[in-house]
Amino acid sequence: MFELIEKKRNGKKLSGEEIAFIVQGYTAGTIPDCQMAAWAMAVYFQGMDTEETAALTLAMAQSGRMLDWHLGDRVVVDKHSTGGVGDKTTLVVGPLVAACGVPVAKMSGRGLGHTGGTIDKLLSIPGFRVELSEEEMYRQVEEIGLAVVAQSTFLAPADKKLYALRDVTACIDSIPLIASSVMSKKIAAGAQGIVLDVKYGSGAFMKTRDQARQLADIMVAIGENLERSTEALISPMEEPLGFAVGNSLEVVEAIEVLQGGGPEDLREICLDLAARMLVVGGGAADVSRARALAEHGLQGTMSPAWMKFREFVVAQGGDLEAFRQRVEARQCLEPIYYRSPNRGKVTRLDALGIGQAAMQLGAGRAGLSGGGCDGIDPDGIDPDAGIRLCKKCGDFVEEGEPLVALYTSLSAENHSRRVERAWESLVCSVECRE
Amino acid sequence: MFELIEKKRNGKKLSGEEIAFIVQGYTAGTIPDCQMAAWAMAVYFQGMDTEETAALTLAMAQSGRMLDWHLGDRVVVDKHSTGGVGDKTTLVVGPLVAACGVPVAKMSGRGLGHTGGTIDKLLSIPGFRVELSEEEMYRQVEEIGLAVVAQSTFLAPADKKLYALRDVTACIDSIPLIASSVMSKKIAAGAQGIVLDVKYGSGAFMKTRDQARQLADIMVAIGENLERSTEALISPMEEPLGFAVGNSLEVVEAIEVLQGGGPEDLREICLDLAARMLVVGGGAADVSRARALAEHGLQGTMSPAWMKFREFVVAQGGDLEAFRQRVEARQCLEPIYYRSPNRGKVTRLDALGIGQAAMQLGAGRAGLSGGGCDGIDPDGIDPDAGIRLCKKCGDFVEEGEPLVALYTSLSAENHSRRVERAWESLVCSVECRE
Repeated sequence: MFELIEKKRNGKKLSGEEIAFIVQGYTAGTIPDCQMAAWAMAVYFQGMDTEETAALTLAMAQSGRMLDWHLGDRVVVDKHSTGGVGDKTTLVVGPLVAACGVPVAKMSGRGLGHTGGTIDKLLSIPGFRVELSEEEMYRQVEEIGLAVVAQSTFLAPADKKLYALRDVTACIDSIPLIASSVMSKKIAAGAQGIVLDVKYGSGAFMKTRDQARQLADIMVAIGENLERSTEALISPMEEPLGFAVGNSLEVVEAIEVLQGGGPEDLREICLDLAARMLVVGGGAADVSRARALAEHGLQGTMSPAWMKFREFVVAQGGDLEAFRQRVEARQCLEPIYYRSPNRGKVTRLDALGIGQAAMQLGAGRAGLSGGGCDGIDPDGIDPDAGIRLCKKCGDFVEEGEPLVALYTSLSAENHSRRVERAWESLVCSVECRE
Repeated sequence: MFELIEKKRNGKKLSGEEIAFIVQGYTAGTIPDCQMAAWAMAVYFQGMDTEETAALTLAMAQSGRMLDWHLGDRVVVDKHSTGGVGDKTTLVVGPLVAACGVPVAKMSGRGLGHTGGTIDKLLSIPGFRVELSEEEMYRQVEEIGLAVVAQSTFLAPADKKLYALRDVTACIDSIPLIASSVMSKKIAAGAQGIVLDVKYGSGAFMKTRDQARQLADIMVAIGENLERSTEALISPMEEPLGFAVGNSLEVVEAIEVLQGGGPEDLREICLDLAARMLVVGGGAADVSRARALAEHGLQGTMSPAWMKFREFVVAQGGDLEAFRQRVEARQCLEPIYYRSPNRGKVTRLDALGIGQAAMQLGAGRAGLSGGGCDGIDPDGIDPDAGIRLCKKCGDFVEEGEPLVALYTSLSAENHSRRVERAWESLVCSVECRE
């Protein structure tokens, strides 16, 4: 291992066998944390090429259980977003793609920091089960074409261990390490088609379009290298996606889109993602045909996608009627409004700051080591807390008009302290120019 | 700690308090190895400036016992060599400088790899004690002006821990980390004057004069920054210093110099070092006066330096008469000769290869983690094994004339295997051109 650290430190390329040796040794505990940390820092400075990154991805995927989908000749697709604020696209594209005939099997993480997690959003539906056994998941995908479950701890344990190490040693922001971390879980989860949504901007992990492009390119290259049909979409995350940020608030907004309405930006990206998923899944010959198919899937208050969503929720034990009743009862309570101090045009609704405000209101977790995959206490989360934007960038407002609505439970401990901290985040994140 | 790793990773300067926090936390165990390894690798890539390096040095020195010399207004000096092959200068300059009136207190490491250690050389003298208590060391320096003891484990424990970590994480060859490692032990050992002998070339850690210059400059800057009078000498280490490589062989050669003779290159560097030590110790006003003083100290078979050496050996329990008898008995045995395959001029006597050959004959240890400070089994060493050069670079030889004499114990386990391996090293290290 000493020689492999030195080799990478000196900017040399590691072979597939060398990388497998590192990952196996680290997973087995024969390579200690200190050597792995030094190696990760050397990678931070020296980088890795596509072959090295693909080898790392494969070795991490093979460190645990590898799922294998057998649905005859149908290709199962998976989708991954690098994380954003108000990103509820999985709730829409999962049922939409399944409704168009391409099966979707997705393992999701829980939310962390200012970015929400699909699992937390689904858990805001009473009764919804995110922990399915492998057999249950297989059967559900076979029967209804869609399952969304919590990331299994048996998948890519090497990634989990390495991520936790990188998290304490300032080795997170290395593009090859990020790419292999994301892709190792996708490869282990077994889908033959993968669509990636790589976000950039204030609310995203990648701050610039260039970085996002780089990350997307290397992830696509890894996927192709490991024989998965892979496509990536690059999308901005300067302001939140849609209006809602917070678990049940986002489910409600996703349902609006599923019923043929909803915010334009959210609807648009869902159609884009679904079209690509249909293409990699073989459900359409090209993107324009796939796009037409997807648009049809979202048509009307009784759209095929909405029907599929309801089937999916029922299959995983969720009770949409109970959800509707709780949300309506909650909506009777007046939110707290953050109002515009002046007349003008909204020029900034910073996704990071708004995500943090929602988290402070109880919609998310402050952070933890280990990548947010498991071992998290979901009880800390208020499913109905969060933020709803009243305006988006470019809109005009009058002085005193509401810009942002804050939702939090009055019975929450430190209710006023929560609102106060969320308020502070908003002050720095929202801007209207006369 | 996370933020400090990130700060260094991003090429920012750390404050003295930040560095002290790192060293204290690492010594106390609140900062884990993995974070320290990542930090060391970040330092490898981003470097540290003089202030940072001095702060690291001081923090590591303060991690353990700090000695404090009170000899009235007399300045106690210390000397350190960055390691070479056949480097027995301490055995000469210690008594020489003490004989000239400047007290010398030196803590030495044991040998490691192809470089010998002063402690191992002294241990080849029967009865010699290298482990003195602090009080014994103080008293001896006060009474006879000289003590040379094994590096105490109580000095700079942080350096010991960090060195062991760097040793397994490929973070050794970083100039600021090397400089602070050396200087932390010197600062903790308490001498007010420090003279450094920085070697470069095949047999040295630094391969080029430029690197040695850099290392010397930063060590002198650290010393001055921490209010020690510090000077550095830069000297080549392409061929071994003198003719002898191996513990008792080197003691014998040092005695030749102490008695007014010995090899010219060895005598010359000893005078240079001694002159600088006399200057930093206030024993002479300038280098030329100091040099004259030193030359006088080495004059004659009953030179003041030789008298002081005998006093010093007796004070630490050594028996020079027993040493002489053992060495003479050993010299009756014919050494094995490595002879010149052709007539010509000796163009290469590679210090590294010759050092390794001596080690293989039983003169040293192959290597160990922890910097060779302690916890080593000295029994693995044959005090009389080693190499004596018959020629030096530039000398003419006839075909078949001895170039190198190999000494090893016939009773040693694997005697012939040892000779064979030493021979292999010599074949690659010795060159004569017609």
